[in-house]
Amino acid sequence: MKREIEKARVLIEALPYIQRFAGSIVVVKYGGSAMSDTEIKNSTMKDIAMMKMIGMRPVVIHGGGPSISEMMERLGKKSSFVDGLRVTDSETAMIAEMVLSGTISKDLVLSLQRQGIDAVGINGKDGQTLLARKKLVDGKDIGFVGEVVKVKTALLNSLIEQDFIPVISPIGTDWEGNTYNINADYAASAIAGALNAQKLVFLTDVEGILKDVNDSESRFSQLSLSEAEAYIADGTITGGMIPKTECCIEGIKRGVQSVHILDGRIPHALLLEIFTNEGIGTMLTK
Amino acid sequence: MKREIEKARVLIEALPYIQRFAGSIVVVKYGGSAMSDTEIKNSTMKDIAMMKMIGMRPVVIHGGGPSISEMMERLGKKSSFVDGLRVTDSETAMIAEMVLSGTISKDLVLSLQRQGIDAVGINGKDGQTLLARKKLVDGKDIGFVGEVVKVKTALLNSLIEQDFIPVISPIGTDWEGNTYNINADYAASAIAGALNAQKLVFLTDVEGILKDVNDSESRFSQLSLSEAEAYIADGTITGGMIPKTECCIEGIKRGVQSVHILDGRIPHALLLEIFTNEGIGTMLTK
Amino acid sequence: MKREIEKARVLIEALPYIQRFAGSIVVVKYGGSAMSDTEIKNSTMKDIAMMKMIGMRPVVIHGGGPSISEMMERLGKKSSFVDGLRVTDSETAMIAEMVLSGTISKDLVLSLQRQGIDAVGINGKDGQTLLARKKLVDGKDIGFVGEVVKVKTALLNSLIEQDFIPVISPIGTDWEGNTYNINADYAASAIAGALNAQKLVFLTDVEGILKDVNDSESRFSQLSLSEAEAYIADGTITGGMIPKTECCIEGIKRGVQSVHILDGRIPHALLLEIFTNEGIGTMLTK
Amino acid sequence: MKREIEKARVLIEALPYIQRFAGSIVVVKYGGSAMSDTEIKNSTMKDIAMMKMIGMRPVVIHGGGPSISEMMERLGKKSSFVDGLRVTDSETAMIAEMVLSGTISKDLVLSLQRQGIDAVGINGKDGQTLLARKKLVDGKDIGFVGEVVKVKTALLNSLIEQDFIPVISPIGTDWEGNTYNINADYAASAIAGALNAQKLVFLTDVEGILKDVNDSESRFSQLSLSEAEAYIADGTITGGMIPKTECCIEGIKRGVQSVHILDGRIPHALLLEIFTNEGIGTMLTK
Amino acid sequence: MKREIEKARVLIEALPYIQRFAGSIVVVKYGGSAMSDTEIKNSTMKDIAMMKMIGMRPVVIHGGGPSISEMMERLGKKSSFVDGLRVTDSETAMIAEMVLSGTISKDLVLSLQRQGIDAVGINGKDGQTLLARKKLVDGKDIGFVGEVVKVKTALLNSLIEQDFIPVISPIGTDWEGNTYNINADYAASAIAGALNAQKLVFLTDVEGILKDVNDSESRFSQLSLSEAEAYIADGTITGGMIPKTECCIEGIKRGVQSVHILDGRIPHALLLEIFTNEGIGTMLTK
Amino acid sequence: MKREIEKARVLIEALPYIQRFAGSIVVVKYGGSAMSDTEIKNSTMKDIAMMKMIGMRPVVIHGGGPSISEMMERLGKKSSFVDGLRVTDSETAMIAEMVLSGTISKDLVLSLQRQGIDAVGINGKDGQTLLARKKLVDGKDIGFVGEVVKVKTALLNSLIEQDFIPVISPIGTDWEGNTYNINADYAASAIAGALNAQKLVFLTDVEGILKDVNDSESRFSQLSLSEAEAYIADGTITGGMIPKTECCIEGIKRGVQSVHILDGRIPHALLLEIFTNEGIGTMLTK
Repeated sequence: MKREIEKARVLIEALPYIQRFAGSIVVVKYGGSAMSDTEIKNSTMKDIAMMKMIGMRPVVIHGGGPSISEMMERLGKKSSFVDGLRVTDSETAMIAEMVLSGTISKDLVLSLQRQGIDAVGINGKDGQTLLARKKLVDGKDIGFVGEVVKVKTALLNSLIEQDFIPVISPIGTDWEGNTYNINADYAASAIAGALNAQKLVFLTDVEGILKDVNDSESRFSQLSLSEAEAYIADGTITGGMIPKTECCIEGIKRGVQSVHILDGRIPHALLLEIFTNEGIGTMLTK
Repeated sequence: MKREIEKARVLIEALPYIQRFAGSIVVVKYGGSAMSDTEIKNSTMKDIAMMKMIGMRPVVIHGGGPSISEMMERLGKKSSFVDGLRVTDSETAMIAEMVLSGTISKDLVLSLQRQGIDAVGINGKDGQTLLARKKLVDGKDIGFVGEVVKVKTALLNSLIEQDFIPVISPIGTDWEGNTYNINADYAASAIAGALNAQKLVFLTDVEGILKDVNDSESRFSQLSLSEAEAYIADGTITGGMIPKTECCIEGIKRGVQSVHILDGRIPHALLLEIFTNEGIGTMLTK
Repeated sequence: MKREIEKARVLIEALPYIQRFAGSIVVVKYGGSAMSDTEIKNSTMKDIAMMKMIGMRPVVIHGGGPSISEMMERLGKKSSFVDGLRVTDSETAMIAEMVLSGTISKDLVLSLQRQGIDAVGINGKDGQTLLARKKLVDGKDIGFVGEVVKVKTALLNSLIEQDFIPVISPIGTDWEGNTYNINADYAASAIAGALNAQKLVFLTDVEGILKDVNDSESRFSQLSLSEAEAYIADGTITGGMIPKTECCIEGIKRGVQSVHILDGRIPHALLLEIFTNEGIGTMLTK
Repeated sequence: MKREIEKARVLIEALPYIQRFAGSIVVVKYGGSAMSDTEIKNSTMKDIAMMKMIGMRPVVIHGGGPSISEMMERLGKKSSFVDGLRVTDSETAMIAEMVLSGTISKDLVLSLQRQGIDAVGINGKDGQTLLARKKLVDGKDIGFVGEVVKVKTALLNSLIEQDFIPVISPIGTDWEGNTYNINADYAASAIAGALNAQKLVFLTDVEGILKDVNDSESRFSQLSLSEAEAYIADGTITGGMIPKTECCIEGIKRGVQSVHILDGRIPHALLLEIFTNEGIGTMLTK
Repeated sequence: MKREIEKARVLIEALPYIQRFAGSIVVVKYGGSAMSDTEIKNSTMKDIAMMKMIGMRPVVIHGGGPSISEMMERLGKKSSFVDGLRVTDSETAMIAEMVLSGTISKDLVLSLQRQGIDAVGINGKDGQTLLARKKLVDGKDIGFVGEVVKVKTALLNSLIEQDFIPVISPIGTDWEGNTYNINADYAASAIAGALNAQKLVFLTDVEGILKDVNDSESRFSQLSLSEAEAYIADGTITGGMIPKTECCIEGIKRGVQSVHILDGRIPHALLLEIFTNEGIGTMLTK
Repeated sequence: MKREIEKARVLIEALPYIQRFAGSIVVVKYGGSAMSDTEIKNSTMKDIAMMKMIGMRPVVIHGGGPSISEMMERLGKKSSFVDGLRVTDSETAMIAEMVLSGTISKDLVLSLQRQGIDAVGINGKDGQTLLARKKLVDGKDIGFVGEVVKVKTALLNSLIEQDFIPVISPIGTDWEGNTYNINADYAASAIAGALNAQKLVFLTDVEGILKDVNDSESRFSQLSLSEAEAYIADGTITGGMIPKTECCIEGIKRGVQSVHILDGRIPHALLLEIFTNEGIGTMLTK
């Protein structure tokens, strides 16, 4: 009987979230270790499929840096980086698109479809979804590294409406037809804003936003925009936690209702964060 | 972390049911001890409200024998029964209608509304929902005790469509305008059949269908129609378990996809039966 | 031939009204002698059914004071009144609801249905239709006598839309779940206003608004809001005519286009008032 | 009070017809004396407008023989007839079309519009509404006298749907583009059949179908198809009554639910026939 | 191969116009020599049918002065004109209506239908499409010559919506039911404005707006509103070119996007003007 | 003037095709030389964009063998072929998908979008559009070369409905998630059949189906299915013409209304074939 009581408790806790998020667009940025471990990949795709089944409308944006580097090496090209961004000549951009759109996204499409949910892999050229321009790094031109100028949502909305999960490779284009490699976190944030997503979730390799990077117990479960900004200002949030926090702040500023950072290595991290009161990562809200 | 794993397990188990039953009509016969205990009444109404919130479409049929007897006594009339059915002269029928439609159903309506879900109390006269005729007991006329001749679903479908939970008192009428008191179990079964309900749930004072009435561990978790009929025939199901089992069989024959008998005294019995693999009562299917 | 000419005249007179009122919501307050005389009740229900058949959308609100008093007496409770309003402890409120919702409204539902028109009996708890609060009489608390705080029209509109005639018992509730007995005239006026009714008709025991209460020939056939207010101010309308007139004024102020007081004892009073040029009662307009 | 009772009686009698015929297509053949007397023309157009106002969907087909003859004379052409049908060379056909479509139909359009109802005058060429072929009279070719081969209802249905009253001149055409003058009674019957009209009404100069042509009291109020055929066979209906009766029979055979012959000279003949129990002409039904 | 290249060129040139004008309302004023030459009439009707087939929505307004004069003569009436406008007593108005609505418009309807496109001939009385009043010529009353007061577009829009081509005779009416003969050019302009037409095309007997009336090579291919007004003011456009130019200006001022004057005598003038870059007449735009 | 007459002729010839094919699905197989010549690529994409603009619904399937071979070489893999089909181990399948979906299809998407028409590049994995199985070549297993088992049209129909042009890479999958390289001609034929396409057009390097391969003047302009089969049987069509003809026959058998083989090297070959009477290739019909 005690197990029944516990089960009933979990259900009573989860059901209101299920109702509240029915129909919500949830943008999931999928990257990091969660991509390389097959079991975790399967558990994540299962979570996304389940979110779809119970009425949410997930949208996936994926990364893929290591695979790009690997293909470049096979093709005899050296990868080089400035401030963490890949120096991208036009051939590198072509390779990045080929790997992201021609391999990784189709693989995720198949994984979702194996859970019974139809998916479609696109990149920012399809339907002119991501219009981009060259991004300078501290004034330096490092090639076809793009920043999002405009998200055209017609194709995404049409796919969502027809019950497909869009799986988006972060490749953009401009009016001259150039190919840009775009940082997946920024792309996710821009797309979530343009779609008026209710949630934007970053699956990463950290437990959330931590007060003390060395103490995973120091995770903030929930933060408001102003708290986050204050904690950065007063030095409570420090070091590598700052860019992650800023990334969440950006999402809120673009109009997303809540932005989550989760440890993608925890099995079913998405379900636990969304359907339980305490969650397992950090949720930033307005 | 162990608790998270357990939570994820309950969610993974529940979500497919949530999806499968989205939009389903679930008829709940509410009666017995579950009506007299205020706490249980609240937990039951909360369960029904939750079912509605996550997309199911519950319909409630209630009983109320003890309250009718009490009012009769206050008005100086004696209750008498034949084979468990109340002998019902025209004044008794009037009192039954008054108590069921004028007091009990409105009280349930308020309870559901306190959970944030709109409800509407009707009886079988409204919209000619329950057309009835006199039911003879072994050939004997015991007055205005009715059996259902036809369920007219227009009003129920309209209320369901508009997101109201119908709360139905088991009072019927005929073309001459007589008032009939109808057994709530039979009314529930007829209504579930007419609405093509996916589920019909009887909240009762027993744990389900038991092999041995004295051993609550002997509960059948699931039974097919043919098994149930065979177990009655071969004496496995005996005594007071027989009418309950027959009541479930009746529901399946009218086209309901699954009929459940639950112990309504267990808190959140409805959620546990519907959203967990093992359930807590007996489910009869075709 | 003369009869044909007279018939044609009546038709030519009536048809424009039929067209003008097609689709109009007409709220009928039904009470007084028109309720106790079976023949008059039938003629009234027939009129309401006909209004529905030719495209109007009637809504009925009924009274029932004498029946409440009678049931209280049977249950050994004394009725007492302050300024014409019944002192209402919680048991009295329960009895009032039981009699109005559990007996009278269902009886009217059957009467309408015998004319081929589906009807549904509800009270102000259903769909939270009538939210009420305690009404003080000259500062005195006389119990659960309510005044309307808000009319939630979703249920009424849904029923009307689906071609049911709503039959409303004047019982309201508040957020704590209390039961209030509400004066049917005031409830009718509030409901007519909330539904943007084109007409509100009071079926009463007087011929209309009379200049001289003792002279039924002194009836005003039509009055404007300002005339009515002026006639009260200058003493033309006096005595028992004042509250009736004020009741009509209230309806106009809530946005109803015309409010009618008719003698409900005249057979087919509703049809004669609505479809003939002179009418038979008093019509108040803006 | 007696007048009120009489009024109520007429209304009670008329209302069910109003409801029953709401939305019905009623084809009115308008011709004979009812066309030449201005007052009668106005009363007829008023009746048609009223039918429209209360929800029926009238369609008018008009005649105009005398006006054609008059214009022919002015243009120096002689009218000649064979078996009551006008010998029609191509110029006569042109004159007939010019008078019917260019003068009479537009005049009726204006008359209806003066009653507040929009109307549109068309002939059988418009939207290919009436496809015709040459009609031989006892094997003789008398020119461009046509019989209806097909009624294309798209234009009529579109006008009716948009709340216009179609006013149709009985001119037809064929695939070679010839112009045919068609007998208005036959055209009305063909159109009523093609539109699945509920009623077809002939406004004529007789009281209806009479047993004894000299005794207007001998009118049949109602006849079934088989009775009508039997009465012709057994000589009860004789002489000039036969073609009129056959004309009605034709309508029924084409699927119209009831065909009426009325004396168009009686003011408001249409309303009296349709909205009173006894009617004033003869109604033929299946 | 050279012919293929030329064909491809014409298609590449035409296709964008086809797309741009899909769904556009194009009002064509049809008159002059293009009406009397059968071959030209057929080529014009074929062009209009083609415009309809590929998705444009043409509306035709026709003239017919010579036919009116001819019929007047046959009926023994003299035609007389003041400033080019026909002096129109009530009989002349009747004759004009008879000829335009009863003969010419029906003939055009048949011509269009022979191309496989349904058409409907109406005049301004139908559906009260053209409300008119008496037009004074320099203060002189010359009878029932009308100017357009209001265009009621319900009937036209309904016909267009249902894929009929309206063929309009320029006859108007007023509230008293008078019949007015209206100049077809002005009627076309008023109708094009009321329908928010994208194009208004005048098929005339001149090549377009010419700088030098005697030099057909001096045609303006395109003119803006301000240029046209300037050229009239500075005397570049002179003589008979002025009223034609003013007629186009009027169309633009009423909101039409482009107004065209074409030589209707050139076969397929409409197609050439609309679907080729240079066109063959003069196009006036804002 | 002669040029105008020629222009009008081309338009008169083209317009009926434009109307007839409005809304038609036209599947274009794009491959061969037409892909490698930039100018021809642009003219082809312009044709497809124009077809879309005037209301047709084109779908593109592309090839890309040479690019795959080139990438394989860069990655140090040898291409080998059996009967013209590429021997495809799992790495080759991965490279084929990467090149087709990650480079070629996105390039075509951009080309179409530069013409103002939105396009979306997908492959057969997206939305499970192409379910495939291993194709044996004369009983030999040459790896992941697939044949189409089923075309799931939901995604294609959704994109078409939303006005996107689908650009499809001929990659399929099966239930185990394998990647198959499919012959683009066969994929085009299967997709055209599944979409109930009106037309299927193969852009190739030959003028059409030729009687004599060495005489481009011997082209069949039109062939019926039975003629094609007869000409193969009797040796009229020989050699390399046989597989091309069989490919067309296959399309017709799958329900496409007409299949066209064109020389894709002729500028605007698509427009000339579709919108002129003679066309420039061979059209096969039922």
